Order: sequence, then structure tokens, then C-alpha cells
Amino acid sequence: MHHEEHLHSSDVLKDIVIGMSDGLTVPFALAAGLSGAVDNTGVIIIAGIAEIAAGSIAMGLGGFLAGKTELDHYNSELKREYWEVDNLPDKEQEEVRVFFKSLGLSEDVQNKAMAELTKDKDVWVDFMMKYELNLEKPDPKRARKSAFNIGVSYIVGGLVPLSPYFFVTNPEQGLIISVGITLICLYVFGFFKSRLTGVNAVTGGFKMMLTGALAAGAAFGIAKLIEGK
Amino acid sequence: MHHEEHLHSSDVLKDIVIGMSDGLTVPFALAAGLSGAVDNTGVIIIAGIAEIAAGSIAMGLGGFLAGKTELDHYNSELKREYWEVDNLPDKEQEEVRVFFKSLGLSEDVQNKAMAELTKDKDVWVDFMMKYELNLEKPDPKRARKSAFNIGVSYIVGGLVPLSPYFFVTNPEQGLIISVGITLICLYVFGFFKSRLTGVNAVTGGFKMMLTGALAAGAAFGIAKLIEGK
Repeated sequence: MHHEEHLHSSDVLKDIVIGMSDGLTVPFALAAGLSGAVDNTGVIIIAGIAEIAAGSIAMGLGGFLAGKTELDHYNSELKREYWEVDNLPDKEQEEVRVFFKSLGLSEDVQNKAMAELTKDKDVWVDFMMKYELNLEKPDPKRARKSAFNIGVSYIVGGLVPLSPYFFVTNPEQGLIISVGITLICLYVFGFFKSRLTGVNAVTGGFKMMLTGALAAGAAFGIAKLIEGK
Repeated sequence: MHHEEHLHSSDVLKDIVIGMSDGLTVPFALAAGLSGAVDNTGVIIIAGIAEIAAGSIAMGLGGFLAGKTELDHYNSELKREYWEVDNLPDKEQEEVRVFFKSLGLSEDVQNKAMAELTKDKDVWVDFMMKYELNLEKPDPKRARKSAFNIGVSYIVGGLVPLSPYFFVTNPEQGLIISVGITLICLYVFGFFKSRLTGVNAVTGGFKMMLTGALAAGAAFGIAKLIEGK
């Protein structure tokens, strides 16, 4: 028996990927940038923790509010579809027929399918929401869970590049250790993230590492440049 | 004549929203956090610019690579669907029938639609991609444009909260001006963002402002706490 293996990652894993991608990259690059410009690790630690707090709240709360907005949007479109089905049934019926036409079905089947589908108003509206507007009913509890998962993942990711600075006093020493462990983590993270979506994992690991390295390199270069003035 | 007004924002506007949401929030909160902990604006400017560089690259390049991955994923699933249609036609035909069943159509129409749809292999696979796997063919050029739009929006957004620090020497003075202009910008941005998605714009403006204020407040509080030790 053939087993169908289209990979679909779960919602929680998606949240972790979203939070950790940025969490590993941005605080890493900020710490690297500051390492090229300041002479003690105290400032790097304060800036790094402030960034992690800011980033996790912005991403988590941002995600939460976006989820709420999505729900509002869905409900307002739902109300509108019910209104349209009640007040402009011919037009909405035609839209159902056009959907079946777009699939390449014969006129006979288009009309039969349209007639059956528009018999029940709830089925009809449900169909319009999904296939005309491409809107899935959002889970009201998802927004809160998602916010939490993304925020925590950002914090966990952000503490990786920052942690070396807690144990050394010289920023450059901290930077060397931070670059080492963060690039390894970015590779491992990119590797497993790619496995989830079913694309080449080795390439995925390198891509993630490259993003982090470029962001950190740019931040370091720019900070050195400003500091040099 | 009734005009159908379901609002769909364009891709460019979506990119701007993604980049600017984070650009206005995270550098704002970082600068606020540092204002509570350091005694000159030089460090804040360096950290802020390093963060903007890091964030715009992480978001832009991250978006670009994510777009590429999406394309790879689409192509690998497409190959798999062709393989399945060739090697397991009965199973795949049944999946088409089940789709029409899920719409609530009669067995007669299910079978007719299935028979018509599976006559042409390309139409059939195209259908499976869209309605079994929920995958739309990604535009190969989108990834690059999107990366650029997101990155630039992040920079523009990030320069708003940072700019006051260029003109004052006292961090607390900078913070007061930065809070003022950034909260206004967050409100205006949230207002127009909500208009695009068709939800209440006044509430949307306040939500965006709240996110920024909470992130900045937390960063400020945490930085003060660490500094106090």
C-alpha cells in the first residue's frame, strides 16, 4: 500500500518556526553590531534583553491582535454573504456556477451542481466563504495560544546568541562564542524547519545560517562605521 | 446596482504592512529600553541602527528565502501529484469525488463531475493542488519584490522612533519625543491597515498603538531593572 505523505506541519510547530526564526536572527545581529561598537558587555546585555522583550511582545501581541482581526473580518464577510444570498440570489447563484465552470466542468454539471448547492442557505454561504473569498473559519482560541507560542519561541531563540555575553567581559570574546553557537543553532533550526515543509533540509539549514550571518555582518559593519566617525 | 466590496489588499500593501508593523514597534521599544539604562544617545543610535539593519535583512532576506522555499515545495508536491495520478488513478479519482461530496452534492453529480474533471490530466492535477492541498502556484518573481518591499518598510518604520535621538543629547528628552511621534504613527498606521482589511479602523489604530506602547514599556522596565542591579 502506498502511503500519502504530503507533509503538513501542525499549528504549534508553525508558531515555533515563526518566533524562533526572528528570535535567533535579530538579537544575534544586534549583539554582533554592538560588539563592534562598545567596549563592555553590560550595554550589549541590556540592549539584547530589551530587544528580546520588545520583539517577543511585538510578535506575540501582534500575532494575537492579528488573529482577533482575522476573526472580525471573517464574521463581517459572513454577514455580508448572508445578505447577498438573501438580496441578490441570482448574482450569487451565478458565482457558484462560475466556480464550477472554472474547474472545467460541462454546462450540464455546472447547472446541476449549482442547483443542488444553493438549495440550503447555510451550505451555500459556507461554500461562498471558502471558495469565492478563500476564507477559512478561524479558531477563536488559536489567537491566544499562537501569541504565547510565538512569544516564548522568540525569547528562547533570542537567549541563544545573547547568553555568551553573560559569561565574558570582553565584547569581542562574547561575539566569537555567540557567532559559533548561533550559526550552529541556525543551521540545526533551518534543517528541521525544512524537514517539516518537505524541502531539502541541508539547503534549508544553510539558507537559515546565511540569513543570520548576513544580518549580523551588516549590523556589525554599520555599527563600526558609525562608531568610527 | 449593488457593488460587491469585499476588500482585498494588494500584495505590495501587505508587504508594507508586514515590514512597517515590526519596524515601528521593535526599534521603538529597543530605544525606549535603552533610554532607561544609558546616559547618552550615542549608544541608542548605534543600537537602533544596528537593529534596523538586522531586522530589515532578517525580515527581507527571510521573506525572500521563504518565498523560494514555497516555490520548491509547490514544485515537489506538483511532481508527486502527477506521479499519483499516473500510478494510483483510482485513489485520486476517489479524492476528487470526496471533494464534491464534501460540498453536499448528490452522488449523481459527484460522479459526473469527477468523471469530467479527471478526463484531462493537467486539469485534474491542477484541481488536486488547489483543493486537496490548498496550494496556489507562487509567482517566482514575488519573492524578490516582496523581500525588497518588506525590508524598505522596516527601515522607514524603524527610523521614525529613532530619529528624535539624532537631535538631542539627553536620552530622556529623546524618549519623550520618540514616544509622542511613534504612538501617533502607530495609530495612523493601524488605522489605515484596518481600513485595508475592512475592519473597524479606530479600534485597529488603538490596537496597534497598544502593541507598541506595551513593547516599549516592557523594554524600558526590564532595562531599568537590570541597570538598577
